[in-house]
Amino acid sequence: MTTEFTTDITGAVVDSLKGTADPRLRELLGALTRHLHDFVRETEPTTEEWERAIGFLTATGQKCTDTRQEFILLSDVLGVSMLVETLGGHRDPAATESTVLGPFHMTESPVRALGADIDLVGSGEPCVVSGRVLSRDGTPLPGAVLDVWQADAEGCYDVQQPDVQPPGNGRGLFTADTEGRFWFRTCVPSPYPIPTDGPVGDLLRATGRHPYRPAHIHFIATADGHTPVTTHIFVAGSDYLGSDAVFAVKKSLVHDFAETDDPSLAREFGIPNPFRHARFDLVLEPE
Amino acid sequence: MTTEFTTDITGAVVDSLKGTADPRLRELLGALTRHLHDFVRETEPTTEEWERAIGFLTATGQKCTDTRQEFILLSDVLGVSMLVETLGGHRDPAATESTVLGPFHMTESPVRALGADIDLVGSGEPCVVSGRVLSRDGTPLPGAVLDVWQADAEGCYDVQQPDVQPPGNGRGLFTADTEGRFWFRTCVPSPYPIPTDGPVGDLLRATGRHPYRPAHIHFIATADGHTPVTTHIFVAGSDYLGSDAVFAVKKSLVHDFAETDDPSLAREFGIPNPFRHARFDLVLEPE
Repeated sequence: MTTEFTTDITGAVVDSLKGTADPRLRELLGALTRHLHDFVRETEPTTEEWERAIGFLTATGQKCTDTRQEFILLSDVLGVSMLVETLGGHRDPAATESTVLGPFHMTESPVRALGADIDLVGSGEPCVVSGRVLSRDGTPLPGAVLDVWQADAEGCYDVQQPDVQPPGNGRGLFTADTEGRFWFRTCVPSPYPIPTDGPVGDLLRATGRHPYRPAHIHFIATADGHTPVTTHIFVAGSDYLGSDAVFAVKKSLVHDFAETDDPSLAREFGIPNPFRHARFDLVLEPE
Repeated sequence: MTTEFTTDITGAVVDSLKGTADPRLRELLGALTRHLHDFVRETEPTTEEWERAIGFLTATGQKCTDTRQEFILLSDVLGVSMLVETLGGHRDPAATESTVLGPFHMTESPVRALGADIDLVGSGEPCVVSGRVLSRDGTPLPGAVLDVWQADAEGCYDVQQPDVQPPGNGRGLFTADTEGRFWFRTCVPSPYPIPTDGPVGDLLRATGRHPYRPAHIHFIATADGHTPVTTHIFVAGSDYLGSDAVFAVKKSLVHDFAETDDPSLAREFGIPNPFRHARFDLVLEPE
């Protein structure tokens, strides 16, 4: 490994991976090495630029805590998260499209009964979210589980404001009923900036990008015999639908939170009439 | 940015960088995005694999301290540091080749007089390192500065053993004399493992790679009007010259630490005769 290094460092590194026990790890690391070296060969970073990159990555790791995941944020703003999710997500156009997990799925969502209000503070405009979890052929999926999380009306998640929001605010783990239906109350979410007080914020400022995400609610839907889907619903008409800081918007995921005047439905949901109501179905692909 | 995402996330991210004030930063981030997305498209990581990667990068950042740089180590074992150094280094075959900086150039080397012993503990086999700093045409470079650092005879740097080694052990900042000459005393360095108690160690174990580096002394040589060079001298005959964990060996950098029986030279250097002696010149490219 001495002589040929100047001409084939890449080959030497890939070759050094041949003892990797896990063949998938070997494939991933070999490909990472090739693409990373291609990047270096194309751009020829100076030592100072390389040192800045090392410093940036170090600061990104050191910004992470139990409630802050700066590397997910970095992956998000570079479109990597969305690409991973899109390539790994449902390919069947009849199934609900996936989108990014985001950095705030870090605490367990509290188990809640259907119809419960996940807005424990009651600060925002109340609304109902309802629909069904279905298999691809339209069969309802009773017992499907929905993990739901969202920011409050000011655009903050519970974990970002431990002194202001009770833990579990904006979160709920719901089980669909015998007909695959789900419904819960919450507040209409707002657009919000991703955290900008860390290295990713510096990156956004250096690139002249705004940090905002359009209003959305996160979902992970799981059901027996089906591939889970990680997705959002976006609020139709929200600001930033066309320039999401993390590139996560898909047209099929944008839904009306329609102003609804229906006293009997309001009574059923236990919400003052009129009310905002988002309805949509989650369609899962059989395994 | 809503409709075309599934097919062109990469284009959307590159497009989002168009407001970057610094054109070089825009170039670097655009190329990084393209190559990173190519890697994801080629390997299609699962969400679990992506989460493992996020966890690995986070742990790498969090392992870093004032005296430990795990991201440099990661760059080193993936051959990225060596590639950056090789592409950015001297192109002129007559000049001294460069190699990696490594993760241990983190404290200032103490200014020392020519001839001083950088082995403050005196644990290893004593030796003399001497030579000249020259310009490419052979002109000596008086006043050239050599920053030197090495591990002790047990393979540890001072910063790794603050309770055992005095700060500055194995380090020195020397100024070449009026004829461009330098000489100092030290101990013959030993091969050593890079630190394996962090994520990079986990990576080496998972890939079945040993963590050893062949015996070497680090140098950064600077002189007015010349491009500095970051390099090593490797000890001829050392173990691991053919399988350096960080791919940093170049043939031209391997030098004999020859057993020398020369009483008058020993007297000149103030070292017991016989002694080990490495001689080589550092040749810098004019700017």
